[in-house]
Amino acid sequence: MFQNALAEAGAAVSDHLDDVLAPFEGELGAAMRYACGGGKRLRAFLVLESARLHGVARSPALDAAAAIEAVHAYSLVHDDMPCMDDDDLRRGLPTVHVKWDEAMAVLTGDALQAVAFELVTDADLPDMARLCLARGLARAGGGHGMVLGQVLDIAAETAATPLTLDQIKRLQALKTGALFEWSATAGAVMAGADPAPLARYAEAFGLAFQIADDILDVEGDEAQTGKRVGKDAAAGKATFVSLMGLDGARAEAQRLVDLACDALAPYGEAAGNLREAARFVISRQS
Amino acid sequence: MFQNALAEAGAAVSDHLDDVLAPFEGELGAAMRYACGGGKRLRAFLVLESARLHGVARSPALDAAAAIEAVHAYSLVHDDMPCMDDDDLRRGLPTVHVKWDEAMAVLTGDALQAVAFELVTDADLPDMARLCLARGLARAGGGHGMVLGQVLDIAAETAATPLTLDQIKRLQALKTGALFEWSATAGAVMAGADPAPLARYAEAFGLAFQIADDILDVEGDEAQTGKRVGKDAAAGKATFVSLMGLDGARAEAQRLVDLACDALAPYGEAAGNLREAARFVISRQS
Repeated sequence: MFQNALAEAGAAVSDHLDDVLAPFEGELGAAMRYACGGGKRLRAFLVLESARLHGVARSPALDAAAAIEAVHAYSLVHDDMPCMDDDDLRRGLPTVHVKWDEAMAVLTGDALQAVAFELVTDADLPDMARLCLARGLARAGGGHGMVLGQVLDIAAETAATPLTLDQIKRLQALKTGALFEWSATAGAVMAGADPAPLARYAEAFGLAFQIADDILDVEGDEAQTGKRVGKDAAAGKATFVSLMGLDGARAEAQRLVDLACDALAPYGEAAGNLREAARFVISRQS
Repeated sequence: MFQNALAEAGAAVSDHLDDVLAPFEGELGAAMRYACGGGKRLRAFLVLESARLHGVARSPALDAAAAIEAVHAYSLVHDDMPCMDDDDLRRGLPTVHVKWDEAMAVLTGDALQAVAFELVTDADLPDMARLCLARGLARAGGGHGMVLGQVLDIAAETAATPLTLDQIKRLQALKTGALFEWSATAGAVMAGADPAPLARYAEAFGLAFQIADDILDVEGDEAQTGKRVGKDAAAGKATFVSLMGLDGARAEAQRLVDLACDALAPYGEAAGNLREAARFVISRQS
C-alpha cells in the first residue's frame, strides 16, 4: 500500500534527520531541525522506493532521502521569506523568519543546503555513486534547476503577459521536476543501474503533480488543503487550469500519470507503490 | 613574488568563473557573475599555491579555486542583505539586493553555493579527492563552519555582554578560518597528501588575518580600505583590539604569522609565496 509506504518513509526520514541535525548547536541547530519537521516526505518516499527496487542498503538510502528533504526544506525556508512568497505559516506553524527572524531564515536555508551535500558525500556507497548523487543534487537544486525555476516563477508574477503552456511546463520542470527526478532516480544511481526509466517516470509524475496542484487551487477545500484556494487565479497568474481549462487539465494529468506508470514497466509488479503514488497525486484532496 | 602570484591567481580564477558561470541564463546568470566579480581572491590564491606545492594539474586546481570563490561570494551576497549587515556597497559597487532585489540576492547566493559543489564534483581528479573536497566544503561552509560563525557573530551584536577572547577566536575560526583551511589544504587533498601542515598554516594565518582586520578598523585609512573605519568600536562590538589593546593585538598577529610560516617548514623554499602572504596580511593598509 502506497499510503503505508509513504507514512513509513516519512517516519524513517524524520528520525534520520533528527539524528543528523542533532549535533548542530544553539539557535541555528534548533531552526534547522524546525525547518525539516513535517511535510508529506514525498521526495524521501521516492528515494526509498527507488532504492528498494535496486536493492540498495537502508543506511545510504536514508542518507539520500534525508539529503533531498533537507534541500526541499531549505528551499521552503527561503521561499517563505518576505522578499519572496511572504508566507507566515507553513504546515500550520510559523515560518522560520517569523519564529526567529529573516537573518536566521537565510542562514538556516544556507546550512541545510550544505548538510545535504554532507549527507550524500558521507553515505556508505561506492565513491562513484556518492559523486553522482552530489553532482546531480548540485545541478537539480541549483541555478540550472530549482533555483532557476524559482527565479522564473517570480519573474512571471510581474511579467506583462501571462506565461504560455510551454513556459509553465519548463518552469515547473525546473522548480519541482528536477528534485523529483533526482529523488526517483537516486536508487538506480546508488546501485550503478540505468536511471532512464525512473527519470521518465519522474518527469511525467512531477508535471502531473503540478497540474493537480493547480486543480486543487481552483476546486480544493481550504479546510483540507490548509491553504487559501483561488490564490493563483486572484493573482492573475497563468496556471495549467487557466490555460487548458479544468477538464483539459484533468485529462492531461491523467495522461501524464498513465505515462509515468508505463515508464515503470521494466520493474514489473515491484514498482506498485510508485504507480500508486502517481495515481494518488491526481486524486488527492489536499 | 606574492603580489604577482596573487594577481595571477585572481586573473586566472576570474577567467575560469566567467567560463563556468556563462551558461547560467537570464537575470540569475547575470547576478551570479556580478556577485563573483572582483575581490582580493585570497582564497583562490591559497588553493592554487597549495596545488602547485603538490604538483596538482592546473585544470582541477582552478575548479577548486573557483569553487571556494563562489562560496565566498554567496556568503557575501547573503551577508550584505538588509536583514544581516545591510550593506549597499561591496567593492565600491551596489550589492546584489540593491542592483536587483532581495529575492534575487537570496536565490543568487543559493545558486552560487550549488555551483561550488558542481565544480568540485566535476573536477578532473581521482574520485576520492573530489569527494574529500566536496565533503570538506559542505562542512567548512555549513552549519558547523562558516554559517555557524555568522550566526554567532549576529548573536554577539545583541548579546548583553561582549564576547570573551576565546569566544571571538572561535567565532572567527568558524566564520573565516574554516574556508581558509579548506583553501590552503585543497592542494594536499587533491594530491592525496597529508594536509596537516597546511591546516596549521591556515589556522594561524586566518586568525592573524582577522586581527589585522580589527587593527585596520581602528587605524586604517578610509580612502584606502574602502570601508568606514571605527565601525566595530562604534557598534560597541568586542574586537581583538578592544580585548588585547592595539599593541597586544599587533604582537599576537605577529606571533601567529610566525607560527603560520613555521608550519610550512616541510615545504622549504617552495612555500615562499604562502609565507609572504601571511606576512603581507599584517602589513597591509587595506
